[in-house]
Amino acid sequence: MKLQVAFDVGSFKDLIMLLEKVEDLIDIVEIGTPLIVKEGVKEIENIKNRFPKKTILADMKIMDAGELEAKIGFDVGADIVTCLGLASSKTLTGAKKVASRNNGKIMVDMINHNNPIGKWPEFLEMGIDYCCLHTAHDDAVTGDNSIEILEQFHKTHGGKNLAVAGGINPDLIQEMKLFQPEIVVVGSYITDSTEPREAVENLRRAIK
Amino acid sequence: MKLQVAFDVGSFKDLIMLLEKVEDLIDIVEIGTPLIVKEGVKEIENIKNRFPKKTILADMKIMDAGELEAKIGFDVGADIVTCLGLASSKTLTGAKKVASRNNGKIMVDMINHNNPIGKWPEFLEMGIDYCCLHTAHDDAVTGDNSIEILEQFHKTHGGKNLAVAGGINPDLIQEMKLFQPEIVVVGSYITDSTEPREAVENLRRAIK
Repeated sequence: MKLQVAFDVGSFKDLIMLLEKVEDLIDIVEIGTPLIVKEGVKEIENIKNRFPKKTILADMKIMDAGELEAKIGFDVGADIVTCLGLASSKTLTGAKKVASRNNGKIMVDMINHNNPIGKWPEFLEMGIDYCCLHTAHDDAVTGDNSIEILEQFHKTHGGKNLAVAGGINPDLIQEMKLFQPEIVVVGSYITDSTEPREAVENLRRAIK
Repeated sequence: MKLQVAFDVGSFKDLIMLLEKVEDLIDIVEIGTPLIVKEGVKEIENIKNRFPKKTILADMKIMDAGELEAKIGFDVGADIVTCLGLASSKTLTGAKKVASRNNGKIMVDMINHNNPIGKWPEFLEMGIDYCCLHTAHDDAVTGDNSIEILEQFHKTHGGKNLAVAGGINPDLIQEMKLFQPEIVVVGSYITDSTEPREAVENLRRAIK
């Protein structure tokens, strides 16, 4: 399992400060949607220059204008860009086209999709690289998590190309291990912690 | 009918240049999603300072973290913030709560929603201010427009609170007039024109 950390912090300055503390322990640096809409993806260039070996995911949640918006993400150095699973197939194929041209990848965020398991083969066919089973933050905060959907997904498609996001902590990782998702995405467990490095170490131990 | 112009241009600098040419003729200035993800909503503060009387809509297409993301938009001076109609009700009520606190409004973008007409009363109940019937850019470019859905929406709910977006030009406005949407949203007809002021004047004539 790879560890993706969603940096939903207040500014790119805060992100860099936090990243410096934990970067050696994480696999994918996610630039969260709130930070993108607040300060813009152009700031990713600085992150990439500062941490050139890290894989950077821009959580753009593209819903329309797939080519145009994906280009904005890859142009500033993102390695992976997210689209919504609820976007149209034209939007997704447009984004994928730009990803391929930039040696980049597309993750489809299945947030609020009513049939992620049935839909995934179609996305895979389009060349989409990762499927993210995502419990919305607004739902995850009330403890509405999704081990069941992960189990069903794993039964049908296995854990390859699969990412899981939404309210994830070390205990949940223990439960998820059986279904071996390729990527686990963790946000507030780290960003809300007073000891972020310790939090990431706890996650690393759970993943092992 | 009010005229909302979607400024899907390459930079806030380009937006200001274009806005200076046409601002007296438009009702709502839409800061488009691609520009928001590229440069961040914080640039809206400059637009608001420069054009203090204009209504500014930030097309954030919020899908999750409704309170947090809407706050980011209203904090920089947006008057209206968009959420996706496919977001969860928790996301939408969260966004609306922040809107009310800021004397702002929420527009729900029904892009890719399979039942906007049936869903609207629920959103209205939540206090959502505007419903935008939106043909995706990626679909609008192939001419897949939506007079029919507008007609059906109008028959059920009337045109109040209704915005229509996607591939709109003066001819389409003529067709739409019968259904009196409160707002028409126009993008590429203006931004792709070599004579943007003339394009806006054509739209104004069509709206009359």
